[in-house]
Amino acid sequence: MSDPFVVVGADAAGLSAASKFRREAPDREVVVFEKGRWISYAFCGMPYFVEGRVERMSDLLSLSPSEVDERGIDLRRGHEVVTVDPEAKTVAVETADGDSFEQPYDDLLVATGARATTGPFDARGVDGAFTLHDMDAAAAIDAYVAEPDAYDPARADVSAVDRERVERNAAMPAPETAAIVGGGYVGVEMAEALAGRGLDVHVFHRSGHLLSDFGEAVGERVAEELGAKGVTVHTNAPVEALVGDDRIEAVTFGGDADGEGAETLPVDLAVVGVGIRPNTELLDGTGVELGEGGAILTDGHGRTSLSDVYAAGDCATAFHAVTGEPAWMPLGLTANRAGRAIGATVAGDPTPVGDIAGTAVVKAFDMEAGRVGLVGDDAARDAGFDPVRETVTAGSRSGYYPGAAETDVTLVADRDSGRLIGGSIVGPDRAAIRIDTLATALEADMTVPEVERLDLAYAPPFSPVWDPVLVAAKVLNGTLGEA
Amino acid sequence: MSDPFVVVGADAAGLSAASKFRREAPDREVVVFEKGRWISYAFCGMPYFVEGRVERMSDLLSLSPSEVDERGIDLRRGHEVVTVDPEAKTVAVETADGDSFEQPYDDLLVATGARATTGPFDARGVDGAFTLHDMDAAAAIDAYVAEPDAYDPARADVSAVDRERVERNAAMPAPETAAIVGGGYVGVEMAEALAGRGLDVHVFHRSGHLLSDFGEAVGERVAEELGAKGVTVHTNAPVEALVGDDRIEAVTFGGDADGEGAETLPVDLAVVGVGIRPNTELLDGTGVELGEGGAILTDGHGRTSLSDVYAAGDCATAFHAVTGEPAWMPLGLTANRAGRAIGATVAGDPTPVGDIAGTAVVKAFDMEAGRVGLVGDDAARDAGFDPVRETVTAGSRSGYYPGAAETDVTLVADRDSGRLIGGSIVGPDRAAIRIDTLATALEADMTVPEVERLDLAYAPPFSPVWDPVLVAAKVLNGTLGEA
Repeated sequence: MSDPFVVVGADAAGLSAASKFRREAPDREVVVFEKGRWISYAFCGMPYFVEGRVERMSDLLSLSPSEVDERGIDLRRGHEVVTVDPEAKTVAVETADGDSFEQPYDDLLVATGARATTGPFDARGVDGAFTLHDMDAAAAIDAYVAEPDAYDPARADVSAVDRERVERNAAMPAPETAAIVGGGYVGVEMAEALAGRGLDVHVFHRSGHLLSDFGEAVGERVAEELGAKGVTVHTNAPVEALVGDDRIEAVTFGGDADGEGAETLPVDLAVVGVGIRPNTELLDGTGVELGEGGAILTDGHGRTSLSDVYAAGDCATAFHAVTGEPAWMPLGLTANRAGRAIGATVAGDPTPVGDIAGTAVVKAFDMEAGRVGLVGDDAARDAGFDPVRETVTAGSRSGYYPGAAETDVTLVADRDSGRLIGGSIVGPDRAAIRIDTLATALEADMTVPEVERLDLAYAPPFSPVWDPVLVAAKVLNGTLGEA
Repeated sequence: MSDPFVVVGADAAGLSAASKFRREAPDREVVVFEKGRWISYAFCGMPYFVEGRVERMSDLLSLSPSEVDERGIDLRRGHEVVTVDPEAKTVAVETADGDSFEQPYDDLLVATGARATTGPFDARGVDGAFTLHDMDAAAAIDAYVAEPDAYDPARADVSAVDRERVERNAAMPAPETAAIVGGGYVGVEMAEALAGRGLDVHVFHRSGHLLSDFGEAVGERVAEELGAKGVTVHTNAPVEALVGDDRIEAVTFGGDADGEGAETLPVDLAVVGVGIRPNTELLDGTGVELGEGGAILTDGHGRTSLSDVYAAGDCATAFHAVTGEPAWMPLGLTANRAGRAIGATVAGDPTPVGDIAGTAVVKAFDMEAGRVGLVGDDAARDAGFDPVRETVTAGSRSGYYPGAAETDVTLVADRDSGRLIGGSIVGPDRAAIRIDTLATALEADMTVPEVERLDLAYAPPFSPVWDPVLVAAKVLNGTLGEA
């Protein structure tokens, strides 16, 4: 135990691990290398910063470097780990100042996160075109959207911010029309954010309904809500290209494979959110096993296939509660939980990182949606299930109580076993948080008859006698019985 | 199969059973005897009618007599079943017109509900004093609260209503000060309702915190909310007497066992909600087994100890998911579910009525609360558990997202097994419906470590990274680990 616990990456997983480790093993050393300047920022909060609901960028930081220091963590920003030698148990580090050195470790955690992919087009170097996956991009978009004389530099009140980039964007004329490329949850949240800033917003989505992972019922209700709030939704409309040399001028979209028949929409802002991929390059050449999406394969305690090397967060797989297989679903809780568990394990208290159920929720103006488990038929079949599904529309409250709103619940079960394997919920009245009921049922391996018999809450302001989840279970149970 | 399925009581359990039976066995006969005029009314909606949120009393009816008729159910209102002869398989019926007859049955369902108890004092015959447990009382309170010249008779737009009683109450001077006797959930809901009608409202509760079954954390937050909205809450203040001969004039409260030191508050309205008891008199002399609270003991299919006699709803026990024992917790979903299951069973498809978890939610102005399982230490110990509890206060949303509100979660576990046995949640932001997560975990027999590892939803508008439920599980898990 002569060498430290080395953590690569100072965000949710990395700092959770380091903090837990120091609490459990206060006599041992932990070093966290972060290649950039930002640490511990709330990625999920960035759309709300751009929208202006969050006033100061510093509100999105969970921990400052000095708070990390107070926890006894040796944090080194501007330090990039470029290679790992699992035999020698060392990492090679390059600093922003041009130095390099080797750091031995007893245990290593790779928590390098993920980065945005741009798809077939490249927004770099084009003013007004952004990908949203780091704080500098959020600060730049916020500055770009503001009228040059109305931008408040105090918004980006974090020393780590790329000040030059912010100022350059603030000086540009404010945009009027925005293209959101990709209708996943970041795209939906950004549509609300930019509409809230007064822009004419267009969302372009490759497939037939927004929020593909949430299923059709959710995608359609969310598209309706965006439309009702003035956002134009283009489905089955893959963006072909971002047009513009210095500044974005238009997007072309919807053509055939050769681009024939594509349409052009003039825009002066484009935000690309078409996906992310795990950062694993530092393990190239180590022979580490990779899993879904190219993420680092881990076991139930976050261990990789390399001795004494752990991985957690957006760069790592985790076990899926329904399939029992490693899956890559980069989400905030998964990262925090796995980091914390690995910190305990390395400190000597072996702690499982926990399964994931793919639980996700999203807000689109006044609509709320959630999803969990295997929602799509393909995902269910790939995992060896024979999916049967039902979607019901039920009231969120007793019909006579003001505010009762249509809530769509989709449940997916395996035909043979009757086991619940996935579901989604959408509606304007407390719909999103209801997904936790399904997440809990999934993790308990409940069958649909068991879900139907759950004693869920009833009071007129909050639920009808038969909660929408129970109504859906009742209907799906009937369908299963007929099969 | 020559005699009909006879159902006693035409409310949630009875009509659910009759409806399901007719759907499953359309060739067979079902007769429903109801001693009164009202059928299928939403008891839980009455406070919201009194408040005026619900405009018409007819909105609270799920089914009209003609709709029941259309389902092929032989509904007889004004027919009271006075005795049951389980040997002869007949019931004795007396009609409102003074007739009487015997009705043979193949199967019998007793769904006679419960009635309000008044405690040591009796409000009958005193104008302005009410117990709230039927539609006529709700209509009368609504009429009494209105200024005589401002009452709209169309509010009580149901033919079954006791018109004479409504008109008499409407003619009385409108009250200014109300006493709610009993701070259970009906009392809390009525406090909000009457405050909403402009009255100066006082709630009197026997024990130290409101909503005894919800635990202290909930009771205190709800009392704060009532206070903030202008309702005066008196705890440790049992009401001694309703004072007044013809019309209510005051309540006396808070004295010792002999009434010494009691205080007097002048009021011109009193609503008593101190409890209910099951209606089981028609089975007197049959030797039927009774359970908790004097309710009719039933098995997992709703069968009583008498052959071919079932019981469901507010007059019957059901199995508790945590204790595995029969319990009496009269709630709406329990009645509907048991009725429906019994209807299927009698029709030839044996269907379990399902466990109960004691899940309940209540709204108090802008505060929401829920409870499930065994919340109090006494209940836990009586069931053979060694309870350990923690209450945490956590944010309902990410701290930087506007609207994040303090949410108190209490979890109770069994020390030896670590099993979750109960919990409560209170807060103003989507707190109540979160209890369904705990209800599902309880019914799945989850341990606290399992709850801590649940993959619950995270998005800034709906939950912090660690949902309040997870925070509570984390803290309780720590306490269990130390023990």
